[in-house]
Amino acid sequence: MSGGFFRSRWVEPPGAIEELAPEELPSGFRAAGVHCGIKTSGRDLGLLACDNDEATSAARFTRNALVAAPVMVSRRASLSRLRGVVVNSGNANVSNGEAGVAVAEEMAATAAAGLGVPRDRVGVASTGVIGLGLERTPVIEGIESALPALGPGADDFARSIMTTDRWPKYASLRVPLAAGEVRLSAQAKGGGMISPGFATMLCFVETDAAIDVHTLERLLGAAVERSFERISVDGQMSTNDSVFAIAGGASRVGVTAGSEDELLFAQTLDALLRQLALEMVADGEGATRVARLEVTGATGATEPVARAVANSPLVKCALFGGDPNWGRILAAAGQALPDADPLFTVAIGGVEVARDGDAVPLDDERRSELKHAMRGDEVDIRLSVGVGNETAEIFFCDLGPEYVRVNAEYS
Amino acid sequence: MSGGFFRSRWVEPPGAIEELAPEELPSGFRAAGVHCGIKTSGRDLGLLACDNDEATSAARFTRNALVAAPVMVSRRASLSRLRGVVVNSGNANVSNGEAGVAVAEEMAATAAAGLGVPRDRVGVASTGVIGLGLERTPVIEGIESALPALGPGADDFARSIMTTDRWPKYASLRVPLAAGEVRLSAQAKGGGMISPGFATMLCFVETDAAIDVHTLERLLGAAVERSFERISVDGQMSTNDSVFAIAGGASRVGVTAGSEDELLFAQTLDALLRQLALEMVADGEGATRVARLEVTGATGATEPVARAVANSPLVKCALFGGDPNWGRILAAAGQALPDADPLFTVAIGGVEVARDGDAVPLDDERRSELKHAMRGDEVDIRLSVGVGNETAEIFFCDLGPEYVRVNAEYS
Repeated sequence: MSGGFFRSRWVEPPGAIEELAPEELPSGFRAAGVHCGIKTSGRDLGLLACDNDEATSAARFTRNALVAAPVMVSRRASLSRLRGVVVNSGNANVSNGEAGVAVAEEMAATAAAGLGVPRDRVGVASTGVIGLGLERTPVIEGIESALPALGPGADDFARSIMTTDRWPKYASLRVPLAAGEVRLSAQAKGGGMISPGFATMLCFVETDAAIDVHTLERLLGAAVERSFERISVDGQMSTNDSVFAIAGGASRVGVTAGSEDELLFAQTLDALLRQLALEMVADGEGATRVARLEVTGATGATEPVARAVANSPLVKCALFGGDPNWGRILAAAGQALPDADPLFTVAIGGVEVARDGDAVPLDDERRSELKHAMRGDEVDIRLSVGVGNETAEIFFCDLGPEYVRVNAEYS
Repeated sequence: MSGGFFRSRWVEPPGAIEELAPEELPSGFRAAGVHCGIKTSGRDLGLLACDNDEATSAARFTRNALVAAPVMVSRRASLSRLRGVVVNSGNANVSNGEAGVAVAEEMAATAAAGLGVPRDRVGVASTGVIGLGLERTPVIEGIESALPALGPGADDFARSIMTTDRWPKYASLRVPLAAGEVRLSAQAKGGGMISPGFATMLCFVETDAAIDVHTLERLLGAAVERSFERISVDGQMSTNDSVFAIAGGASRVGVTAGSEDELLFAQTLDALLRQLALEMVADGEGATRVARLEVTGATGATEPVARAVANSPLVKCALFGGDPNWGRILAAAGQALPDADPLFTVAIGGVEVARDGDAVPLDDERRSELKHAMRGDEVDIRLSVGVGNETAEIFFCDLGPEYVRVNAEYS
């Protein structure tokens, strides 16, 4: 397949798939993105529609106890039969009381009426500042102007969901199943407040394959677990994280549970969401560098250690500086473990820097390798926390002055 | 009493005590601080000694699973009968294997021999970079040159324990007990990697009062719980946190359990450690502003919420920018709670910005009050997370570009 989208060495797309222009939606899907006035400039309202009445869908939402109004409204929708999603950026519509819920409900109703589908078949998503009232008029008028703009390209849509993202995150793939060719596309946005549990900021997945609800649920769940649930920009779980996947079926090619086709489709979806998740980390607020941390050890120990290291501001600052200050990795790991005497072994870019808790002396050659590894775009860190075979993987970005600048001046 | 040391509005020292010159040690104590060559310049080796053989002591150490060699060695010492502590800065002596432990042991032994006390009556502490071998020779020679420099002032000692601290943190107090006058002094250091559990970075407390071990233990424990355990610079628990308190008894004034004198002494110790803890936050790496967060709610909910908010990089960046972006406070709090529908109420500087989960509309006057409160040196935040009377208090600092600069270039 051609390169381009799958830039990370940590993602392995199936060899058989082919990358299309990123804006190409699978047949049966249309999208639009317009400016409605929430942001001072730029597109801030997106609409996604599936023309097939038999479409199946699946969704995942944040696990934060505080959720946005659109998440409340979406949770009440027919999540296995969605025909569309309406989304705004620039305002998260959180903590706006009944008025906020009413606007989210009206967004779904207006989009549904325009698309000619029942109101419960449209999902809603929002992203932006928390606690600012979302005005009804611009959003509703925005939906009305987006409806006639719906078309087969997702370019405007992918841009309309951006907040502090520096680049749009989307891709479109051709998947040659044995039963016939299908297409799979997705659009996502990241920014800050990225530490998804169960889902991530916003991601929309479309396919013209025909997939029963149960299989789609399972495929999406598995792919989300290996992608958006394994990333952290700043350890902050959003109130708005939402992933929507719609299988329209326009290709008339079915993906059935247990088939070889299901395996290829699952591998493709996995690679797609994993690369999108990595894009979110690479484009985390102020990020200049991505690290992959793999923690191995006893059952139950690896996940808290992986999170503690990935969210350590000291580790993240060292990553920004390209400084192999592994002592901070150990200290953060030690903080996440019960009082004990852990035997940490750490390797950065394949260079072992500590073994069984103690520093490994490095010769000049290894030292220079280490320095080089630490300054790459993608830094590989492996940490063993003692006996055991459980593994936890996490992707995170560095913490630089740009994160501070973006977030000291945001609201 | 005179002002000076007790600068924070969140500390209330007893009216009866008097502040002395910060370097004045209680009678029976001597200290020194010298340059031994761990750092390229500045004092980096400190020695503290108590001349009274009947001295009692108490200590607290980090709860990190990974601990420094000096912490291991100190834990094996006679912690209730310490006569001295030796400390170095510039190197944390962590993850240096048997060699690191041997250096820490030799530090204690050399200091003990010089002071003419048994080896198990000297504690050891270190602070600085993790994972770099601590060379034996400069440290041991440093102790030998510190021994003849021991004197009644703690000025050099207070400076010798500094790492990224911008100012030395120490104070000396006269406490007029009914049974007679005693003195109480302490020296501390902060920096980064500050989120102590059970103890804090480094703090040394001296008094010439005579206090039995059991009472001293209890007094120190209570004061540490209300001071160093309630602060966070960056949520990173150090491997080296240590607090040592020595009661020499040279004043021949006893502090006995249950007496009025014990109460006054306890209040004084509480104010002293609380102000020192606040100094650590105010002098956190790159810090420009301190916040006090008080969380009220159901039993068990307030502590994780307080930690989650205090350690949120988004909340800390907003604090740096003087931006009352309370949505980030709610999102961080929601992340720490089990899936539910929390009714958050938030006030910043006395201005209520959200009630029962929804934004409170502010008139111009309140908005200007809020802005003013958010830009002060000490920002007061109160968060109610629903029904319940449990309260958790935490002090934290902002996250500015200077934190990143210090920590991207540290090792």
